[in-house]
Amino acid sequence: MKIIVDAMGGDNAPKEVVLGALDALKAKQSLHVVLVGDKSLIASELAGHTYDVARLEIVHAPEVITNDDQPTTAVKTKKESSVVKGLELLASDPDALGFVSAGATGAVLVAAYMKLGRIKGVSRPALAPALPTVKGKPVVLCDCGANVDCKPLNLLHFAVMASAFSCAMTDTVKPSVGLLSNGAEDKKGNELNREAFELLKASPYIDFKGNCEARDMLSGDFDVVVADGFNGNIALKSAEGTAGAIFSILMDGVKKGGLRAKLGALMLKPVLKEVKTRMDYNSQGGACFLGVNKVVVKAHGASKRKSICASILQARKLAKSGVVEKIRASVRATEETDGKADAKSED
Amino acid sequence: MKIIVDAMGGDNAPKEVVLGALDALKAKQSLHVVLVGDKSLIASELAGHTYDVARLEIVHAPEVITNDDQPTTAVKTKKESSVVKGLELLASDPDALGFVSAGATGAVLVAAYMKLGRIKGVSRPALAPALPTVKGKPVVLCDCGANVDCKPLNLLHFAVMASAFSCAMTDTVKPSVGLLSNGAEDKKGNELNREAFELLKASPYIDFKGNCEARDMLSGDFDVVVADGFNGNIALKSAEGTAGAIFSILMDGVKKGGLRAKLGALMLKPVLKEVKTRMDYNSQGGACFLGVNKVVVKAHGASKRKSICASILQARKLAKSGVVEKIRASVRATEETDGKADAKSED
Repeated sequence: MKIIVDAMGGDNAPKEVVLGALDALKAKQSLHVVLVGDKSLIASELAGHTYDVARLEIVHAPEVITNDDQPTTAVKTKKESSVVKGLELLASDPDALGFVSAGATGAVLVAAYMKLGRIKGVSRPALAPALPTVKGKPVVLCDCGANVDCKPLNLLHFAVMASAFSCAMTDTVKPSVGLLSNGAEDKKGNELNREAFELLKASPYIDFKGNCEARDMLSGDFDVVVADGFNGNIALKSAEGTAGAIFSILMDGVKKGGLRAKLGALMLKPVLKEVKTRMDYNSQGGACFLGVNKVVVKAHGASKRKSICASILQARKLAKSGVVEKIRASVRATEETDGKADAKSED
Repeated sequence: MKIIVDAMGGDNAPKEVVLGALDALKAKQSLHVVLVGDKSLIASELAGHTYDVARLEIVHAPEVITNDDQPTTAVKTKKESSVVKGLELLASDPDALGFVSAGATGAVLVAAYMKLGRIKGVSRPALAPALPTVKGKPVVLCDCGANVDCKPLNLLHFAVMASAFSCAMTDTVKPSVGLLSNGAEDKKGNELNREAFELLKASPYIDFKGNCEARDMLSGDFDVVVADGFNGNIALKSAEGTAGAIFSILMDGVKKGGLRAKLGALMLKPVLKEVKTRMDYNSQGGACFLGVNKVVVKAHGASKRKSICASILQARKLAKSGVVEKIRASVRATEETDGKADAKSED
């Protein structure tokens, strides 16, 4: 199984990306990694490490797309960038089944869309992270930011794709789906949501459980939470910001709390660390870009070796489970029954 | 200063509401409270307590509007309910300056709108809680759920009203305003946001600082965060759910963590309690319904005596600061310069 990795993407590239790739190679003997990026920089990061050279390949790509670049322009003009070359390789090499990048989100999504193409029938590809829940098993949030203005049909496709993703990542046979809304009651929601609610409810291809308040997103009561990209992004980032705020206030309290608080924090350290790890959705891998013709995992820009390794293993697992084929089959089935006329692609 | 209190609203009424009102009377000697609700139930809660009878009045209202009632129908038919009678009293008594309820949100908003009327020029009243931030001073989120489908002008009015609210509650002279969006860059946002961004930027009556990611909502970098009610609700509830999830995982870890973790938690208890109190926005009071002709504070449904007391004192403070007059003046000024033609009321 060959996974292509953008060695230049993210705040800690190439060092942490290279280290993460080496960890992944150690973890899975059948894994083959292609590091795409500046050859000499990658080589100097690799120096001194022992690894199976037969399973690690380097493809030179001298350019880097940054967060300051306009995504579409950058993908069109920076043809020698690690993102563009990596995704071109994924598209052309039948042995390559997944791509991982911690680089600029917009550019990764645009390049993936352009180089891999959209799965037939999918109205809009979407970005879906797997988030931690109170019950332990993850919840897939789809979309978390790829599409800011959506139509009801897009949300149905998000539900279908995220259900396939949830099946591939966990042992859930029929993932339960919630629609992110401003209340749990059926009639809640804005115009988009109320229309999407009816589509989701009518679909036999998902296990729709109704509206999900943002408060219950991490409860573990849902395997999938569907939202338009704008709302999904707000729910995700609000959760992230709150977790950050709580830890920051807690640390401040410990600092000011004297010896008792300091000792308490020391004794509680393993538990606090466990909470932090469990709440850090990046430690489990990245967000999957669902709806394109191969597996694309977007790791967090701040990823270190651990999340890069997790993202590579996640891409491998998703490819192995045939998530793309599952999405293709589900969307085709949806198209055949529900809204054949409306399910045409939007460009 | 007379504040009217819905004695029957919320999960813990009338007991905790009555206790909260007694606490508020003790805290402020110039305060006069009118408890509206079932006279005999209120009387039996009051029995055994000492208080200044000259400053506590009871108005009998035998009916109760619950969360199961359809708001508009309930307000029209349950004329003897504590919410309807309380707001009618607020509208008719010139000495009464504020109303507090922990009852069903929809009914409180509908009744407030119907009985008090909208401030001239305000396109849509909105619900605005003051949330805790890392820096300590609160941030006003407006709207958090009263309006799920908004137009750009509504968001400008939310900004103007919430700025007046922020001034009234804190010593901030020129509150900084952020627009809740899916990124901090100017071009981010969905269609509504991008249009609202231009309106906010052009207004001389607010201190607009640009887009605010949900991640930064609780950072303390903004005094006001503006959102449509759907997104505001998602941001608020996601924050609430995440805080709940963290404490639940933490307690679970302590339980399983053996003696060391239990001792650590015990020693850290004052700090953990402080974090919990600071993150619990209800402990500071309720959400203010901005844009109607008198002060209306909606306390959380789960409020206990402490938050009821805080909400009553908050209503008093808001009324004292003349927040309604400030909103009236700001909206009039906005109307005169910016969008006179568009600023017409929507019904």
